[in-house]
Amino acid sequence: MAKKVIGILGGMGPEATVDFMSKIIHNTPAKIDQEHLRILVDNNPQVPDRTKAISKEGESCGPVLAEMARNLEKWGADFLAMPCNTAHYFADFITEAVKIPFVNMIEETANTLVENGVKKVALLATDGTLRAGLYHQKLQEAGIELVVPSEEYQEKVMKTIAGVKAGDYETATAYKAELVDHVVSQGAEAIILGCTELPIAFKDREGFNITFYDPTDILAKAVVKKAMA
Amino acid sequence: MAKKVIGILGGMGPEATVDFMSKIIHNTPAKIDQEHLRILVDNNPQVPDRTKAISKEGESCGPVLAEMARNLEKWGADFLAMPCNTAHYFADFITEAVKIPFVNMIEETANTLVENGVKKVALLATDGTLRAGLYHQKLQEAGIELVVPSEEYQEKVMKTIAGVKAGDYETATAYKAELVDHVVSQGAEAIILGCTELPIAFKDREGFNITFYDPTDILAKAVVKKAMA
Repeated sequence: MAKKVIGILGGMGPEATVDFMSKIIHNTPAKIDQEHLRILVDNNPQVPDRTKAISKEGESCGPVLAEMARNLEKWGADFLAMPCNTAHYFADFITEAVKIPFVNMIEETANTLVENGVKKVALLATDGTLRAGLYHQKLQEAGIELVVPSEEYQEKVMKTIAGVKAGDYETATAYKAELVDHVVSQGAEAIILGCTELPIAFKDREGFNITFYDPTDILAKAVVKKAMA
Repeated sequence: MAKKVIGILGGMGPEATVDFMSKIIHNTPAKIDQEHLRILVDNNPQVPDRTKAISKEGESCGPVLAEMARNLEKWGADFLAMPCNTAHYFADFITEAVKIPFVNMIEETANTLVENGVKKVALLATDGTLRAGLYHQKLQEAGIELVVPSEEYQEKVMKTIAGVKAGDYETATAYKAELVDHVVSQGAEAIILGCTELPIAFKDREGFNITFYDPTDILAKAVVKKAMA
């Protein structure tokens, strides 16, 4: 039976899209090319800045994401996924634009935390994701307590993300240890790397005695499962 | 002035496509997402086996590549590129199917060798690329002598490539040293990693005292230059 075609709304950022594709490939049980999944990608880094859009300081991302979703549907995608946490603020624009399903990364991540019995989790994410409360509602509904960084440490999260986007890995990895210490001291038993650039910054997790949840990886596994079903 | 949209005929293999996208991103002068390039990708691993197609043991890749090219043109790509050496055997199907330019990886690589004054180069590539003489003609025209592995060593090249495609990095890296020794003993002063899986196998090049040419990287640089022009 034919496997389903995956459509990716990408480019937010481009590095995160490549990381997501790589995780799809590594999670696919395939020995030769032809057993791998077909993926259509619109890697569009010109989607307006998500954090600015959420705080109304910049253009909305809704219309362009809706257009990308419609195009991917037209090109033959059987379902959609978007490896950008913050852009999920505009998820309704996507689901309203198309008839095909949209696999929601934040829902998939919340479900995984519930399945694993996590009680108190820290969220490292953009200002936009925090301000929009993207994870807050889903986790509250599930009875999971959320820890977020103080204002001072949140600035370090944003510097880490900007470092990955600029390809500056020295900056991207400079604050890792203190960010982990900061949320652990508040009682977090796990950390959501809630911006798709963060798993790239936290690629090396040696020496950290805490569980990391990577929404990109959770989404990749969900997408492979759906495509193979 | 607007940057051009890159169209990628991908999936041959998928890992090589991700590697190519990553090289485009790293070669783009960008500090924020919005400065990066838009890339439309048809990552289609169901393109028939290229080596079998060339030896007429399998279905031709021409028609499906022509269709992918036409789609990418329709979706808005301003020019096309294909990160698979062997599939360049079918390049005419692509150029005949569309009005937009196709940046040919083999031509770009041959030009780079000429610019760098290389006189004798080894080609590590699939049986299909060797059988089709894809690099032979371009290099001969440029007066560059070509070294290819003996039959015994060519089998090791194919095992290396299959290792990357299967995600088996132990096999993928097992033959590196003896392959380099084999072509150096024949007087090669440089090596073309002439299958897009090989730069992945040869990611760690420490200890090798020879220049490697990576067509994927050469193509990525050419594509970025063209898109920014």
